[in-house]
Amino acid sequence: MRRASFTDINCSIAQALELIGEWWTILILRDAFFGVTRFDQFQQRLGIARNVLTDRLNNLVDSGIMERHAYDESRGRTDYRLTKKGRALWPVIVTLRQWGDEWLYEPEDRPLDIVHQTCEAHTGFDLACRSCGDTIYLRDLTVAPGPGARGDELPN
Amino acid sequence: MRRASFTDINCSIAQALELIGEWWTILILRDAFFGVTRFDQFQQRLGIARNVLTDRLNNLVDSGIMERHAYDESRGRTDYRLTKKGRALWPVIVTLRQWGDEWLYEPEDRPLDIVHQTCEAHTGFDLACRSCGDTIYLRDLTVAPGPGARGDELPN
Repeated sequence: MRRASFTDINCSIAQALELIGEWWTILILRDAFFGVTRFDQFQQRLGIARNVLTDRLNNLVDSGIMERHAYDESRGRTDYRLTKKGRALWPVIVTLRQWGDEWLYEPEDRPLDIVHQTCEAHTGFDLACRSCGDTIYLRDLTVAPGPGARGDELPN
Repeated sequence: MRRASFTDINCSIAQALELIGEWWTILILRDAFFGVTRFDQFQQRLGIARNVLTDRLNNLVDSGIMERHAYDESRGRTDYRLTKKGRALWPVIVTLRQWGDEWLYEPEDRPLDIVHQTCEAHTGFDLACRSCGDTIYLRDLTVAPGPGARGDELPN
């Protein structure tokens, strides 16, 4: 079933999902953050059909999230690397991972730890306000129409 | 095309996507964070087919992310509310929104602002280390096998 498009929705989340919301794409990005670059290695690790992987990688390249990089020019071989726009997705990946760790695994079953090199802790993440620096809690947030609001973004 | 399941992958991200990675689900959660609770309001705002919305809400209830709540017992009416497990997804939603804002919209076109009530700033989010409190940058992070690692989580 062809999924509907979110392109007409005036929402940063919808537009982000339009680029990275397809099934498999986040796991491809996860592996890219782990340092995987080559088609065959993505394919082997994910056990994904080659035509689906080709489609997802092409979409990520078209979106400017990954780029093809020639690693053996004489043989015409390229691999796939995150661009700056792609690397900027890391907060999404690590907050998703943290939620999975905390709500879907028992502590003793968690697959991976994230290590903060500067303090050497196996750690988690809080969100901090860019303005005042304080840790942010959901109850402290509200939304307001932005400069590009059309009027139908928020429920009545 | 029936998508593959991620249930066999020992990864917190894969397990999270198994619950919230379907097309439309994140936008349903977005609206739930906006305060939408009723089926008809989700349906109207998203323009989603009723059978698809029913399927996605049922999955969210089955996953413990939303719960049915009787708002008019005499008429048997229920709506859908985020559980604690569901509300814990807010860092994923706001980091995804922030990436969309920063990479897919010009500043003057951004649909919504997020306001941090305690400092009154229209603000963004940094990730801070739960251990030392410092702002975390991608370059400072590494991954290590967790207590439940099977050995194939990280690439060779």
